[in-house]
Amino acid sequence: MKVAMENKHLADKVSLLLDELAAYGAEPGGGVTRLLYDQAWREARLALAERMARLGLEVSVDRTGNTFGRLTGTGPNAEDVIAIGSHLDTVRNGGRFDGAYGISAGLAAVDVLYRAYGPPKKSIEVAAFCEEEGSRFPLVYWGSGSVAGARVLSDAAALEDPDGILFTDAMREAGFGRDDQPVPGRPDWIAFLELHIEQGPVLEALGVSVGIAEAIVGQKRYAIRLIGESNHAGTTPMGMRRDAMAGAAAMVLALEKLALRYGPPMVATAGRLEAYPNTPNVVPGEVVFTADIRHPNGGVLERFCREMEAVFGRIAGGRGLGMAVSLWVDADPVPMDPGLAGMAEAAAAEEGLACIRMPSGAGHDAQMLQAVCPSLLVFVPSRSGISHSPLEYTEPAHLADGVRVMINLLYKLAYEERTPWEWDDGTTI
Amino acid sequence: MKVAMENKHLADKVSLLLDELAAYGAEPGGGVTRLLYDQAWREARLALAERMARLGLEVSVDRTGNTFGRLTGTGPNAEDVIAIGSHLDTVRNGGRFDGAYGISAGLAAVDVLYRAYGPPKKSIEVAAFCEEEGSRFPLVYWGSGSVAGARVLSDAAALEDPDGILFTDAMREAGFGRDDQPVPGRPDWIAFLELHIEQGPVLEALGVSVGIAEAIVGQKRYAIRLIGESNHAGTTPMGMRRDAMAGAAAMVLALEKLALRYGPPMVATAGRLEAYPNTPNVVPGEVVFTADIRHPNGGVLERFCREMEAVFGRIAGGRGLGMAVSLWVDADPVPMDPGLAGMAEAAAAEEGLACIRMPSGAGHDAQMLQAVCPSLLVFVPSRSGISHSPLEYTEPAHLADGVRVMINLLYKLAYEERTPWEWDDGTTI
Repeated sequence: MKVAMENKHLADKVSLLLDELAAYGAEPGGGVTRLLYDQAWREARLALAERMARLGLEVSVDRTGNTFGRLTGTGPNAEDVIAIGSHLDTVRNGGRFDGAYGISAGLAAVDVLYRAYGPPKKSIEVAAFCEEEGSRFPLVYWGSGSVAGARVLSDAAALEDPDGILFTDAMREAGFGRDDQPVPGRPDWIAFLELHIEQGPVLEALGVSVGIAEAIVGQKRYAIRLIGESNHAGTTPMGMRRDAMAGAAAMVLALEKLALRYGPPMVATAGRLEAYPNTPNVVPGEVVFTADIRHPNGGVLERFCREMEAVFGRIAGGRGLGMAVSLWVDADPVPMDPGLAGMAEAAAAEEGLACIRMPSGAGHDAQMLQAVCPSLLVFVPSRSGISHSPLEYTEPAHLADGVRVMINLLYKLAYEERTPWEWDDGTTI
Repeated sequence: MKVAMENKHLADKVSLLLDELAAYGAEPGGGVTRLLYDQAWREARLALAERMARLGLEVSVDRTGNTFGRLTGTGPNAEDVIAIGSHLDTVRNGGRFDGAYGISAGLAAVDVLYRAYGPPKKSIEVAAFCEEEGSRFPLVYWGSGSVAGARVLSDAAALEDPDGILFTDAMREAGFGRDDQPVPGRPDWIAFLELHIEQGPVLEALGVSVGIAEAIVGQKRYAIRLIGESNHAGTTPMGMRRDAMAGAAAMVLALEKLALRYGPPMVATAGRLEAYPNTPNVVPGEVVFTADIRHPNGGVLERFCREMEAVFGRIAGGRGLGMAVSLWVDADPVPMDPGLAGMAEAAAAEEGLACIRMPSGAGHDAQMLQAVCPSLLVFVPSRSGISHSPLEYTEPAHLADGVRVMINLLYKLAYEERTPWEWDDGTTI
C-alpha cells in the first residue's frame, strides 16, 4: 500500500479540520471552551456531522450525542467496524488539539483512503465521543464510557453543572436522551484507534514523532491530613512544636524521593496543599495535602503506595502528628491491545517515523473502549508538553505523521483485513 | 516589707478585676472581643476609670484614650512616676488575660500597697494602653507607641477598619483626638512594669511561676516565591519536572533544621504556604511561603537569615526553580532594662517563687516604653501555651504570684525609692 500524499498535504488537510472545530467555543486568547451539551458543543457537533456527510460518510448519533461517520465496507465482513476517533469536548479555555485531533485525523485518513482506494472491505467509522474531560459535570468518559457500558444515565442524571443546570436538562436541551435515539453500545466494533497529542514532554525531548501507549497508567490519589498543634510562632520553642507544615514538607520530599528511587515510569505528585490557620506567625496545626501516584503496572503501584504509607506513618509518628490517609481515586492500569501496538510500531517503521512505546500518564477514551474491542492509543509530540491551555501546540509535520500511521493501520485493518494478533508477540508490559 | 496577704486573697482580688473587664466584649463561647474604640472598648474603659476612681486613684486620659490611674506620692520626688500596666484591647474572640491581666494586676497591687502602707513616696500610675493588638486597624502599639513617640496621628488617620470606618472617625466617635486632650507622652515616668501571660508553653513545662523577659526578640518575616513549571502530573516524568512544591518542602525542612542547629531561643516558622494551581493532578508551578524568624540577639538573627537565604538559593538552583525572597517585617530585638530584671529576680526569690530569665517571643507594650524609661516585662504561665483564644487560661495561683512580684517591686521603687541599677550586674544578654 502506498498512498501518494506528501506530508505537507496531510498536514494541511488535518489542520483545516482542526481549524473548523476550533471555531466553535473559540476564546479571545486562542483557547477553546466546548463543554458537554453547551452552545459551542452543539454547533461543533452539527458542523462535524455536516463535514462527515460532505466527505461521503453516513452519519449517526446515539442517545448521548456520540456522533459517528461511517464508510461502509463492501466485503463479506462489512458488518465489522474499525473505529477511529476521540472526544469532541474540551476543558475550559483548553487547546485546539486535545480530542479534536483524534477526530480530525480520523476524517483526514478516511478521506485519503477513500480517494485512493475507494470503499474498504470492512467498514470504518470516525467516532466523536460527546464527552471525556469532566469539565462541565463531575463525570468523565460520558461518551466512550456509555459505549462501553461503564456509564449509564442513572449515574449522571442528577449531576449539576456550576450554574446548577441538571445533567438531564442539559442533555435534552441539546436534543439528546430521547427514547427514539439508539442506546449507546457498539458490539460491531472490532478495533478502536485513538490518535492524541501526548500532553507531556517525552516525545519532544527524545525527538521522536510517534509514541505508542502500551498501557494507560493506574492511578491512586490520596488526601493526607496531618494534625499537629497551632502555636504562637514566637513563644513556642522549636522542641515543643507539633508542626503540621514541617511534617507535610518531610512527606512531600519523601514522596518525591521514593518515586525517583522506583524510577520511570513511576510518577508521584503532591499537587495541592492547604495549611491551617495558614498565617505567617502561627505554627501550622493542620495540613492537608494530596499525593497522586501513577504507574502502568498495578502491582508496582500497590507496592509503592504501601511503602509510601509506611514512610508517612513513620514521619507522623516521629513528629507526634496525627495522620489520616484517605484514598479517593483508585483506578487500575488499562493495558492497550498488544497486537494493535505491534501493528502501529510496524506502521511507523514503514512510514519511516521514529517511534517509542510508553505508558500513557493521562486517561483517554481508548481505556474505555478497550472493554469493547482491541484498542490502540498513539501519541504525537506536544510542544513543551503543554496541554489544557491555549498554548497547547503540535507542529503540522507531527500532526501529519500521526495521520500517516492511522492511514497505514486503517488500510491494513479495513482494506487488507489483516488482524492485530499477527503483530502480538506475546510479551506483556 | 511584708504585705500580710495570702495568695488566695490576691488571686480573688485580681480575678474580680479580670472578670469586670471580661464582661465588656464577652463572646458566647467565653472569648472576648474588645477592639480599639468600639462599643465594648468604650464601655470597658469607662468601667475601668470608675474602678480606678473607687480605688482612690486620680484618673486621666490622653488624646489617644490611654487611661491612667494615679496614686500620688508624698515624698520630695513625687513627680517621678513608677508606671505599671498593659493594654485594654483584645484580638477578635481572644482571651480574658492578654493585656487585661497587666492592668488588673497593677490595680490589685496598688490597692494592696495603699491599704497596707498608705501613699508612696514616688507616685504610682496604673496604665491602660488603648491599643496593642492591631486587630481593628492595621496598626499595632497605638497606645504605648504614642506615649513613646513612635506613633503619631498622621500615620494612623487614613487607616480603615474592615467595615471601611476611618481611624480618625472611630477615634472621635469614641470621644478622643480632641485638641483639649493631652498629647501622649510621659517624660515623668521613671520605670515601667508590665505583667503579662506568657502566651507560650515554657513556664508551664518547666513548672516555674515567673519568667523575666531579658529582651523582646527581633523578628524577620520573609515571603519566598518559587517559580517552577506547572505540568501534568501523569505525563511529566519525575526527571523533567521543576516542581515548586517539592522545592518549598525542601526549604521548609531546611529552615526547621537550621533553627534546631542554632538551638534555643532561635525559632523559625513556615506558617503560610500557597501553591499554584493547587490542583491534585498538576505539578505545582509556583509556591509562595513565609518564614518567620525570631531571636533576642540581632547579630545571631542576621547570621541565621543570611545562612537561610544561602541554603534556599542552593535548593532553588539545584531544582531549576526561580526564587524571589522579600523581607517584609524587620524588627530589631529590644533588650529590657537589666536593672529591673535583676530586681524582679530578687523579688521572685523573696516571694519564694521559682523564676527564669527568657526572651519574649512576642511583642509587648514594654518594648515601646523602653524608649521612655527603664522597662520590665514579667510573665506568668499560660496553660498549654494557648493565647489569642477563648481557651487562654492562667491558674489563679499563678495570677497571684505575678501580682506578688509586682507588689514587691512597686514597694521597693515607690515606697523605698530604690533604683533599678542597684540590681544591674553589668552583664548583657
